[in-house]
Amino acid sequence: MKACVLYSGGKDSSLIAVVLKNLGYEVELVTVNFGIYPSWKSAANSSSNLGFKHRILNAEPNVLKSAVNTIIRDGFPNNGINQVHKYSLEHAAKNYPLVADGTRRDDRVPKLDLNEVRSFEDRNNVEYINLGGFGHKSINHLSKTLFEVKKELTSMENNSDYEIEIRYLISELEGDELAFKIFPEHLQSRVIGWRENE
Amino acid sequence: MKACVLYSGGKDSSLIAVVLKNLGYEVELVTVNFGIYPSWKSAANSSSNLGFKHRILNAEPNVLKSAVNTIIRDGFPNNGINQVHKYSLEHAAKNYPLVADGTRRDDRVPKLDLNEVRSFEDRNNVEYINLGGFGHKSINHLSKTLFEVKKELTSMENNSDYEIEIRYLISELEGDELAFKIFPEHLQSRVIGWRENE
Repeated sequence: MKACVLYSGGKDSSLIAVVLKNLGYEVELVTVNFGIYPSWKSAANSSSNLGFKHRILNAEPNVLKSAVNTIIRDGFPNNGINQVHKYSLEHAAKNYPLVADGTRRDDRVPKLDLNEVRSFEDRNNVEYINLGGFGHKSINHLSKTLFEVKKELTSMENNSDYEIEIRYLISELEGDELAFKIFPEHLQSRVIGWRENE
Repeated sequence: MKACVLYSGGKDSSLIAVVLKNLGYEVELVTVNFGIYPSWKSAANSSSNLGFKHRILNAEPNVLKSAVNTIIRDGFPNNGINQVHKYSLEHAAKNYPLVADGTRRDDRVPKLDLNEVRSFEDRNNVEYINLGGFGHKSINHLSKTLFEVKKELTSMENNSDYEIEIRYLISELEGDELAFKIFPEHLQSRVIGWRENE
């Protein structure tokens, strides 16, 4: 059975991909792109280094624009990012019988609550799987065991989170200052391959 | 790293065992027994058929007695079963750095809420993993793919859930009628081995 993992190249989405592959699913790593900025490249590299099939799922720029409006109005990114994530899940569900993402037990955003998950599965006749059974300690431990991980400051080139296209559009519309206020520079972990001993 | 899976021989606890084994953990399937009735035998058989190491973790009969008091007072099993499950997790955490169970996304009982999970991990310096990222559709699908499953009416001999020792003690204290009122006969799925094609 085919399984789509919404993929950023980070350790969470890499780990759920491994969990599903180990269970026998035919996993495809999918990065949604809204045509604003080619932010999928870093995820495609991580995917290729892990030996997974990677696909770009092209999506409506208007969805991102609407989320950016929400974020500019709110002054913080959470609601807008949830908007984009929910759209991405629905979009992926048109093409796959199973859609997964790296949402973990302790995550707050992006995250569907239990009623949203059930509604998503029922409306789309799809299965949804995430890392909801795993806490941060276990994920950090597993990530160290399985993956070669690079820790670095986020940039436009090394990150495939929704954040990148959103930030790009905010910069265009309102300037860099607001973009950096809403998304301050931060350290990220990017999976760059399997650990040698694996 | 060693991982303990609280094990009943059902498809949920069997599936989390497979997930963890595939991720590289040294998995031991553990059935807690309170010395009231040897209800671990069915789980030990399932474990042996799957090729996992199985252990019986002996526990205080008083814990089960106290849960049975709760259940008789309530007239329904949920709170008492949660009591027993929480105790079992704490007991297992004394012996393992990682404790897992087959609790899934849609489960209600036994289940720890998010605060209880964090408290359990912190107090015991342990990791806790469950099937919280998997819904019933996915688990049924995976179980069909991976396991040979036997559907049958529960009996004292073919089930290793907490229910069996609880029911036995209720029967002793209050008679069979109340035991069957609180735990009506029901169909169960028991894992009896790997599917042939695996």
